[in-house]
Amino acid sequence: MKNNFKHSATIEYTTSIHDTDAMGVVWHGNYLKFFEKAREALFQKFNCGYKQMIESGYIWPIVDARVKYIAPSLAEQTLQIVATLEEYEHRIKISYTIIDSLTGKKITSGYTIQVAVSTSTHKMSFVTPSFLLELIRL
Amino acid sequence: MKNNFKHSATIEYTTSIHDTDAMGVVWHGNYLKFFEKAREALFQKFNCGYKQMIESGYIWPIVDARVKYIAPSLAEQTLQIVATLEEYEHRIKISYTIIDSLTGKKITSGYTIQVAVSTSTHKMSFVTPSFLLELIRL
Amino acid sequence: MKNNFKHSATIEYTTSIHDTDAMGVVWHGNYLKFFEKAREALFQKFNCGYKQMIESGYIWPIVDARVKYIAPSLAEQTLQIVATLEEYEHRIKISYTIIDSLTGKKITSGYTIQVAVSTSTHKMSFVTPSFLLELIRL
Amino acid sequence: MKNNFKHSATIEYTTSIHDTDAMGVVWHGNYLKFFEKAREALFQKFNCGYKQMIESGYIWPIVDARVKYIAPSLAEQTLQIVATLEEYEHRIKISYTIIDSLTGKKITSGYTIQVAVSTSTHKMSFVTPSFLLELIRL
Repeated sequence: MKNNFKHSATIEYTTSIHDTDAMGVVWHGNYLKFFEKAREALFQKFNCGYKQMIESGYIWPIVDARVKYIAPSLAEQTLQIVATLEEYEHRIKISYTIIDSLTGKKITSGYTIQVAVSTSTHKMSFVTPSFLLELIRL
Repeated sequence: MKNNFKHSATIEYTTSIHDTDAMGVVWHGNYLKFFEKAREALFQKFNCGYKQMIESGYIWPIVDARVKYIAPSLAEQTLQIVATLEEYEHRIKISYTIIDSLTGKKITSGYTIQVAVSTSTHKMSFVTPSFLLELIRL
Repeated sequence: MKNNFKHSATIEYTTSIHDTDAMGVVWHGNYLKFFEKAREALFQKFNCGYKQMIESGYIWPIVDARVKYIAPSLAEQTLQIVATLEEYEHRIKISYTIIDSLTGKKITSGYTIQVAVSTSTHKMSFVTPSFLLELIRL
Repeated sequence: MKNNFKHSATIEYTTSIHDTDAMGVVWHGNYLKFFEKAREALFQKFNCGYKQMIESGYIWPIVDARVKYIAPSLAEQTLQIVATLEEYEHRIKISYTIIDSLTGKKITSGYTIQVAVSTSTHKMSFVTPSFLLELIRL
């Protein structure tokens, strides 16, 4: 493993009216959708989309998720979402930052933690399966 | 088939802030969720939940959906949703009516059409599989 | 009005796991979200986002929506969504087509109908307010 | 304030296919919707729904949310969601537990933190506005 390990992916997402609620701002739970979009882009960098994941014999359920809300966002606002791989040897921890694309103002931050579960045994794996380690370390 | 065929299910659902959008009312696409809740209750009446459906070797994708919007609904409003089986011999057509539980005022109406697709052959079936016909006709 | 009137907008959207359901495909109601993203892009072409809309004194609730499902789509599939303005003088009718970006295969089609409602009188307007007519005809 | 302060609300919610994702289980972000349904029931106990909240001159944006995932849930599974008021004098902290209604098995736990923001000044209030304190302490 490289010492200065760091993998991240950045995407842009423009919010829609269906992302907002009657308070006039993006509903707080929807940021987990935006996190997911950036996480999917990050896994794509490792050539590990859902298709590859399932073929590998492991799924990666989220076991812990947290979102901190710094400023609201509105409909038709373009957000930049950065997902950064923080840990991967025993579990996958990804941190997220969402900023307003126009002003750079921070909107939310957060993280998710995922663990490997074998699709054949339904058992949790306490080390990251080797196929994913190899894809990440490439 | 009985001439005076009619099957329906009625459920209540209280809207949440996450069902609304920045216009202050329930987002138009969410009525398809409320329709689905009533449709699921209707299929439960035939002892045909998702588990039974998948075990039967058929899935029932929606091929056509329509919603007519008569009046808006707000957060924390209790709605009554009625799903009525209109056709079932060649395809499943279900109609829906949503009213405000308190006043009886009509909010939306609509329908969905589903066809049987075999999970083994991935082919569409132009008659309703016999196991479902039997459950419906009981 | 120009005789050969035609306004349309095309966007791309890559589906996420949260757009899918346990049948393994994009949940049928979510196509109304993709339609909305293309509709928002279309209104942006007229310089008429939500902010401008509300400032104009009118909102545009959807009164009728329909979706026809031709083929399923999966997670992490890139879709091209085209929104085309079909009518605008008395009501706004927009039609939609969604195709798979890679293969061009048609996934869904549909339409939405919106009417103008004055935010001060809460009355429906049977002609499109002049400010929007002017923006569309530019 | 009573020393043995404790307020909680319990609701039941039956999951739908639209709550699940292609992994076959309820999508992780949707638990924030179920938390919200229980939180709304809790605030209703204080006679403080959204309507009363907005009339009070304060809104209560969520500034921190966390969900821990213990076991998956499926479509058409009935869940019991308990929301418990943990703190209210300076900020509103609510904890949540979701269990399977049938077996009592724990599915998720989590919390949300909300702060009062004046709708006129847009300023955050570091003490809970008196109208809400009174409703809670009744």
